[in-house]
Amino acid sequence: MKEFDFIKIASNIFRKKKEEVIAGAGEDDCAVVRVNDKYLLFTADSLHEKTDFPKQMLPLEIGHMALAVNLSDLAGSGAKPEYFLYTISLREGIDEEFFSQILTGIKNLADKYDVGVIGGDIDFADELYISGFAAGFAERFVLQSGARPGDKVWMTDITGKAQLALEMLFSGKERDEVPFIKSLLTPEPRIDEGLKASSYASAMTDISDSLAISLNLIARKSGVKIEILEDLLDLSELTEIVNYNKALELFLYGGGDFELVFTAEEDEDINGMEIGKVEEGEGVKLKRKSGGSVEVQFRGYSHF
Amino acid sequence: MKEFDFIKIASNIFRKKKEEVIAGAGEDDCAVVRVNDKYLLFTADSLHEKTDFPKQMLPLEIGHMALAVNLSDLAGSGAKPEYFLYTISLREGIDEEFFSQILTGIKNLADKYDVGVIGGDIDFADELYISGFAAGFAERFVLQSGARPGDKVWMTDITGKAQLALEMLFSGKERDEVPFIKSLLTPEPRIDEGLKASSYASAMTDISDSLAISLNLIARKSGVKIEILEDLLDLSELTEIVNYNKALELFLYGGGDFELVFTAEEDEDINGMEIGKVEEGEGVKLKRKSGGSVEVQFRGYSHF
Repeated sequence: MKEFDFIKIASNIFRKKKEEVIAGAGEDDCAVVRVNDKYLLFTADSLHEKTDFPKQMLPLEIGHMALAVNLSDLAGSGAKPEYFLYTISLREGIDEEFFSQILTGIKNLADKYDVGVIGGDIDFADELYISGFAAGFAERFVLQSGARPGDKVWMTDITGKAQLALEMLFSGKERDEVPFIKSLLTPEPRIDEGLKASSYASAMTDISDSLAISLNLIARKSGVKIEILEDLLDLSELTEIVNYNKALELFLYGGGDFELVFTAEEDEDINGMEIGKVEEGEGVKLKRKSGGSVEVQFRGYSHF
Repeated sequence: MKEFDFIKIASNIFRKKKEEVIAGAGEDDCAVVRVNDKYLLFTADSLHEKTDFPKQMLPLEIGHMALAVNLSDLAGSGAKPEYFLYTISLREGIDEEFFSQILTGIKNLADKYDVGVIGGDIDFADELYISGFAAGFAERFVLQSGARPGDKVWMTDITGKAQLALEMLFSGKERDEVPFIKSLLTPEPRIDEGLKASSYASAMTDISDSLAISLNLIARKSGVKIEILEDLLDLSELTEIVNYNKALELFLYGGGDFELVFTAEEDEDINGMEIGKVEEGEGVKLKRKSGGSVEVQFRGYSHF
């Protein structure tokens, strides 16, 4: 996969880290830097029209999304987001009203989580392009590499809704006929859930490409095996619309929902949906209700 | 000017600031946030191929530039740059070697100033596009709004070299025939000079569009008049190549050099080239050797 070749080049070039940098480029959801007795976390994510904004998406939703992808990275590391900066390239045909709506989408979500939008850079190009950069603080951050045998696996909610909405939108349905349209166009970053989980999670990440990819990353970086127990899954929200096999496929491999997945020792305080367990070994398996288990592959749907 | 309309919309939408935010979106070179007894400064800048990279520019230089524009903003506020994140969109035709050279250009400059490149995001689009985000710390930051009548005006070096190089490159000259080609393609951010000036400067900014624009911003935000004294100027580096009037035009209105301009009370410790003084009033004037004075307008050359 070409993107991964480029990422490998980048990780190699920027391998050397400053002493106070705990996680650097390409290592986790966010970069983590020690500042006195706290941690400062940074993340950067870019979106552009041709691959990230379906034509049905409103400018308010584009703004929401540009901030949400960055806040979700911070949530997945257990940080409280504080500051956001953006760069935006406008193309011909984007007027002041459309631009204003994009920024209002950013502002509405920023206000909800008390995030300060403290900088921006505006220029003009052939495509609408938004890069976002967010910083947050954490008392305790959570990496993808901390899962331990004996931990359970938890999610904030099931995945698959955004992917299902995207497929229905692409099949020609109108926005208001599509279930879970909000999961696709204005996904909610799980800030509060991530902060709460940071007090007990051993490993955590936000899910943007697919649950399968997120779990494979945790398993690989933690040096453990993860087993999803089909018995524990409640996919009824999806099976109201599609058959069970399709629902399971969407749950495992669908992208676009901004849920969190984390591992933790069993604890009565845990907020979340238990879906499996961590064991010694490697890889990710799905233990079927019918007995036997199948491999959960390292793949996800790209957005479009 | 259309860009300024968009900036005005953005400043208006993000007007409300969090309590610890001293300068926010659109107010100065950088956003300034108080963190305990220090200040954390942020900046974001984006570059793209069609407007920012002349075809003669090498990928190493593209990488240098992507970081340098951000470091220069921090230098202009008196901060020590610490961390950098980027997002990059690659277009068809950019192979792994070209990509690797861009990142090496970033890395070489980052290493020089001990800046950690701690994050990146890679995707694919129709144009090469790089957004950069930099953060730094300052014990004492300097805004554009602090100039006081009685201060002198200083620069780290003359401006106009980058513009002259660009014009010669566009006239068909080869890279190695063009004087000041480094000022155009690998301008040096004035980090050390900015840090030193932060202990005595009352107002400061980096010059990227033109000296005229930078001085007009300082005059407007500080509520003062600035007078450049032609008597003090040494434009001999430029007049070796062009006539005096052209040299003066390049000095005042040329863009692309990353020098700093600052105001300060006279002090024997000051490092810099004195060019004028701050008075009560408004606007920016050039006091001619021949007597009389002319207005220095709010304009600069765009890069191309």
